Amino acid sequence: MAQKPSIPKGTRDFSPLEMMRRQYIFDTIRGVFRLYGFAPLETPSMENLSTLLGKYGDEGDKLLFKILNSGDYASKLNDEEVRQASKICEKGLRYDLTVPFARYVVQHQGELTFPFKRYQIQPVWRADRPQKGRYREFYQCDVDVIGTRSLLCEVELIEIVERVFRALGIRVALKMNNRKILYGIAEAIGHADKMMDITIAIDKLEKIGLDNVKAELLERGLEQEAVDKLQPILELSGDNTQKLAKLKEVLSASETGMKGIEEIETVFGYLEQQHLDLNVELDLSLARGLNYYTGAIFEVKALDFAIGSICGGGRYDDLTGIFGMPNTSGVGISFGADRIYDVMTGLELFPEDVNCSTKVLFVNLGQKEEAASMTLIKQLRDAGIAAEIYPESSKMKKQMEYANRRSIPYVVIIGSQELEESMATVKDMRSGDQQKVSFAEIVKSIK
Amino acid sequence: MAQKPSIPKGTRDFSPLEMMRRQYIFDTIRGVFRLYGFAPLETPSMENLSTLLGKYGDEGDKLLFKILNSGDYASKLNDEEVRQASKICEKGLRYDLTVPFARYVVQHQGELTFPFKRYQIQPVWRADRPQKGRYREFYQCDVDVIGTRSLLCEVELIEIVERVFRALGIRVALKMNNRKILYGIAEAIGHADKMMDITIAIDKLEKIGLDNVKAELLERGLEQEAVDKLQPILELSGDNTQKLAKLKEVLSASETGMKGIEEIETVFGYLEQQHLDLNVELDLSLARGLNYYTGAIFEVKALDFAIGSICGGGRYDDLTGIFGMPNTSGVGISFGADRIYDVMTGLELFPEDVNCSTKVLFVNLGQKEEAASMTLIKQLRDAGIAAEIYPESSKMKKQMEYANRRSIPYVVIIGSQELEESMATVKDMRSGDQQKVSFAEIVKSIK
Repeated sequence: MAQKPSIPKGTRDFSPLEMMRRQYIFDTIRGVFRLYGFAPLETPSMENLSTLLGKYGDEGDKLLFKILNSGDYASKLNDEEVRQASKICEKGLRYDLTVPFARYVVQHQGELTFPFKRYQIQPVWRADRPQKGRYREFYQCDVDVIGTRSLLCEVELIEIVERVFRALGIRVALKMNNRKILYGIAEAIGHADKMMDITIAIDKLEKIGLDNVKAELLERGLEQEAVDKLQPILELSGDNTQKLAKLKEVLSASETGMKGIEEIETVFGYLEQQHLDLNVELDLSLARGLNYYTGAIFEVKALDFAIGSICGGGRYDDLTGIFGMPNTSGVGISFGADRIYDVMTGLELFPEDVNCSTKVLFVNLGQKEEAASMTLIKQLRDAGIAAEIYPESSKMKKQMEYANRRSIPYVVIIGSQELEESMATVKDMRSGDQQKVSFAEIVKSIK
Repeated sequence: MAQKPSIPKGTRDFSPLEMMRRQYIFDTIRGVFRLYGFAPLETPSMENLSTLLGKYGDEGDKLLFKILNSGDYASKLNDEEVRQASKICEKGLRYDLTVPFARYVVQHQGELTFPFKRYQIQPVWRADRPQKGRYREFYQCDVDVIGTRSLLCEVELIEIVERVFRALGIRVALKMNNRKILYGIAEAIGHADKMMDITIAIDKLEKIGLDNVKAELLERGLEQEAVDKLQPILELSGDNTQKLAKLKEVLSASETGMKGIEEIETVFGYLEQQHLDLNVELDLSLARGLNYYTGAIFEVKALDFAIGSICGGGRYDDLTGIFGMPNTSGVGISFGADRIYDVMTGLELFPEDVNCSTKVLFVNLGQKEEAASMTLIKQLRDAGIAAEIYPESSKMKKQMEYANRRSIPYVVIIGSQELEESMATVKDMRSGDQQKVSFAEIVKSIK
């Protein structure tokens, strides 16, 4: 076997350094989810294909990884059948955490306590064409509350966003919109049927400019009069209060639109009350692709790093309907761990101690020294400090190199002289400083 | 869709309660791994089938979950080919963490620092027939050090075992053996070629008794003389020192056997030096199925709960040889999270606070009270206490039921009277006790 082994394209190994950084992100997110009373859930990596198919559109169906039936998958099939994936595969890998969550809620509705607050941090798989920043296996971090229409949930989720990114040290802005407002706009200009077209056009405002958006709207079948009516919305500016005041004028005739405005005003009201230190902006161009959203929509971007949204979500009124449990409203957001990782790497935001797994290495200088070292290491570990001894009494240079390559910040040297004096030499690998510390003081000095 | 959705057989949803308990186990194990300087690693769920096939025996090959090639998997194949899994599947789900680890080490040998200490906690998949306690998706928690023959590694792993189970509150015994001793025994009775047969027979000693073991050995082709020579080993008793003394006599002519004894004596010596509070017993009947072990073998059992081994492992001298990197010795152990979960559930060892995700629920009695509650909740969360407000001002009974069903230990009630006095009623849901606490004292009183 001369060839080096490899892994499937679009998948990744995560090295110790990458893993420590990823765990820091996951632990931070998980810690905040917990503070807000969300409980963990995990669903199997495999779902029945009947659960997954038809939930993500035709394009999504094609991107499902299918698992070949175990055993003799083909013998009972004719030549035609064996060429149909549906005949030889019953299971698929989960494509996101939302559909399994909906499936779980419906399947276990009798046992659950509603409102049901859950978070879920697991990998998902998509047979997408791999490219920079797009992988075939990646983690999602979802947090949802289902079974209540209370807008306090929206507020909690926004607070979670604020707290997670504050903890990670990423400056962000949260954009917010409401699907009801988008519907109201379409309705107000006489085209409730064209809500998606209008939304898509508005979405491009920043990129292609007002004139081009208007041209596109005409192309998409709006008459000039409707486009004119839309003009004040396209030119909407000012702070949230100013935007909402203007919107109220334009949407006054749309019940749904006014409901959307009321919802967003309620949420803004709570946020003000809470003195939340987060830039929350009403952005009418925010639409988000997923069609199941029916109320609030959120999107979070990093302020100091150019990358797509690093977090997003919204309210849905009928997620569980696909599994036969209608009218169950919920709201959730999802954190994009890979992009957050890229932002933190780019801005060098990882705390120094996240980059090392061992805080103290004891150099190994022989059997007697080893015994003394192991006693001290035990004390350090009892105090919660990650410590280890180099397992062989190799050359000093090799052992120091090991400490360097593993970014171990402190090296303790116990040679024959130190042993006699019950003193250890503690070397700070960053500064190069060395000092002698009595055995009894080792734990205190490292702490 | 009238039918309730379901999940594939052999897979599991983990409810919030199960997840909190599982996370407690994983966090404990991970925390100990870290204390010993092991760094995390994650490999992709999918590996190329060429990486997996042939590594687990014919039986293992059959238990691999294979992933259907994406896109049009069949059109370029003739009717014969499309019936061969190898033609329509290039990837499979990982079967364990050992082979992916070996693959990773070989693939990244140039970047790694040896000795390489890694731990890995990830699910694995096996298309086994599902039955009680056997699942098609389950987690493994592996910890290995590769690139050194130092027996200090064995000692560290045993220390890890002690520390993990002490932290979890499970009383355990660790059985230890050495493959070199098993080889030595076979050699000493003139049947180095029959090491596995002899081992398998010895393995049954407890179950079927001495006479039956001897009968089986004769059946397996050993002559009476060899069986007679084995007798003192089969009857080996006493403490580790006594067993080793006897073994030294019997194995004196076997270089390999004596090396095995020396290794185990060295490990025992270290453990004594460390005053490890763990029952470590030399058990010659311990063989462990995996054929790649070449030195120490470990197995851990719970003392107070009848279940198979909950942790096991050993030293291997050529794990990476299968991928073209020979002579790299390593040693590792694996914790069985599912069985540990069963032991802890059976013995009721989970700490009380592991069973609840929210520590404090604020009852929602209306808008004004809500605002006051949210300010206090923010203070609690800032202090690291998981708190939430019921999102709707529903009937008191419903809200209390929610707290009960979610095992929330404290409920805070702020009604109009409390609001006036800036006092909250704090109810301890376990004892039923209630007391009034000033808003300023809430955090302190809950802590």
